[in-house]
Amino acid sequence: MLYLVGLGLGDAKDITVKGLEAVRRCRRVYLEAYTSLLAVGKEALEEFYGKELILADRETVEQEADSILKEADVCDVAFLVVGDPFGATTHSDLVLRAVKLGIPYRVIHNASIMSAVGCCGLQLYNFGETVSIVFWTESWKPESFFDKIQKNRRNGMHTLCLLDIKVKEQSLENLMKGRKVYEPARYMSVNQAAEQLLSIIKNRRLQGDEPEITENTICVGLARVGAADQKIASGTLQQMSTAELGSPLHSLIVTGSMHPMELEMLQLFSVDRCSSSENNAFERTV
Amino acid sequence: MLYLVGLGLGDAKDITVKGLEAVRRCRRVYLEAYTSLLAVGKEALEEFYGKELILADRETVEQEADSILKEADVCDVAFLVVGDPFGATTHSDLVLRAVKLGIPYRVIHNASIMSAVGCCGLQLYNFGETVSIVFWTESWKPESFFDKIQKNRRNGMHTLCLLDIKVKEQSLENLMKGRKVYEPARYMSVNQAAEQLLSIIKNRRLQGDEPEITENTICVGLARVGAADQKIASGTLQQMSTAELGSPLHSLIVTGSMHPMELEMLQLFSVDRCSSSENNAFERTV
Repeated sequence: MLYLVGLGLGDAKDITVKGLEAVRRCRRVYLEAYTSLLAVGKEALEEFYGKELILADRETVEQEADSILKEADVCDVAFLVVGDPFGATTHSDLVLRAVKLGIPYRVIHNASIMSAVGCCGLQLYNFGETVSIVFWTESWKPESFFDKIQKNRRNGMHTLCLLDIKVKEQSLENLMKGRKVYEPARYMSVNQAAEQLLSIIKNRRLQGDEPEITENTICVGLARVGAADQKIASGTLQQMSTAELGSPLHSLIVTGSMHPMELEMLQLFSVDRCSSSENNAFERTV
Repeated sequence: MLYLVGLGLGDAKDITVKGLEAVRRCRRVYLEAYTSLLAVGKEALEEFYGKELILADRETVEQEADSILKEADVCDVAFLVVGDPFGATTHSDLVLRAVKLGIPYRVIHNASIMSAVGCCGLQLYNFGETVSIVFWTESWKPESFFDKIQKNRRNGMHTLCLLDIKVKEQSLENLMKGRKVYEPARYMSVNQAAEQLLSIIKNRRLQGDEPEITENTICVGLARVGAADQKIASGTLQQMSTAELGSPLHSLIVTGSMHPMELEMLQLFSVDRCSSSENNAFERTV
């Protein structure tokens, strides 16, 4: 049996009881290590699960799926995924390969960032299409996500923006020379995402447009959702470019129309409120 | 501290280790019992958690929130929610009341139907606004959800349809007479939802429209997602009106544009395939 086990979003104890039992009876346990990360490292997970974990980076999963699935028809193998196995990234390729090999599989679900962002008080019903904001380079500055956010907003819908993660990327030089030397991992912050959105707004105005999304559009920055030190900050897009949210992972929401209760919830996390004397009471509750 | 603890979607063991630890140290533990249900009853949860659970129906939560929150500033109280506490239903009202009373709160996330439906292979990125399909009555047959589904589809997006749940509803007679006698719980099936959609399509044609969604639109029916006996069936909307999915809860997805890998995943769950000799192999893997 191949078990696809979601680990949730915080630390080792965010695995479900069912997931933990499955992991403990598996002969081999892989940890998917390229699309997300927990607040704790591989060693902490190994200690809590009582199992050695085999790191599966993008190359392993794509090129060595057969070795992951080896003997999974006669023994149990687990593939651990931060969040939910079919959340922000799906693992359909692995499932399809397992099915072709006649290997049964089972999904053990867990919290995904795609639904856990509801903790800021915006209703998941009122979200439109999710977008990914990618790191711009000198020569590549795509804006397509901005149009999707605008479309959602025109429909009154909020937009969850998943922020880029660069893990095991090679520099152009190392890639050309075939050297498997990797750049340090990079995780886009809410500040960087807001900066890119603000640049696009400026560009659009230079082109004579008046975009739907402006510096004053209410946004929500979320960091380390589900971890003990998670942080949520609400405020204008402009404020998001300087809000201090700390270490990764970050996500950004651009709001659409808001119901009174959504607004009341967002006020709990207001950047303005954070900087007032109520700071501590506010921090304690998130 | 008020803990809002997600229970996930299957049975008692779908709680996270962190959630279980929180429940076990709480003085009072409430179980939210009106928006969803697990495959197991209150007693099975009580036995596994080692705690007595207080059922909190809609009336309790709305009218007796203060009793739920009583002394939560000096002791620990847990409020258990099937799925994620901020998934399909948010519990913002309880959170806002806690904050006003100066009671700190903590959310322990879990799988929500809003993201777990990704297990059928459709990417969560490609979903538009979620809709609710309500039970029609003789005199009330709203169609607004249909327009939202059509809008999503025109944008190439899939639509998750959450199906109506009627728990603790009173008949008009009992309501008028002020008798607290409740009708048996009703959970809309994929068959019923498909029938309502097919009726709307007929109505629209009578009005001279040719709707975007037809009898042949590919849909996915999901039942008991996350439970050991979960069932997924893909096929046309017409096929969904007769697909046998068993006991509740059910959800329905109306697809938009599909990527090749999404299509390949859906074929695993095809109703046509189900009825062929591959039935067993197929059943084994879901």
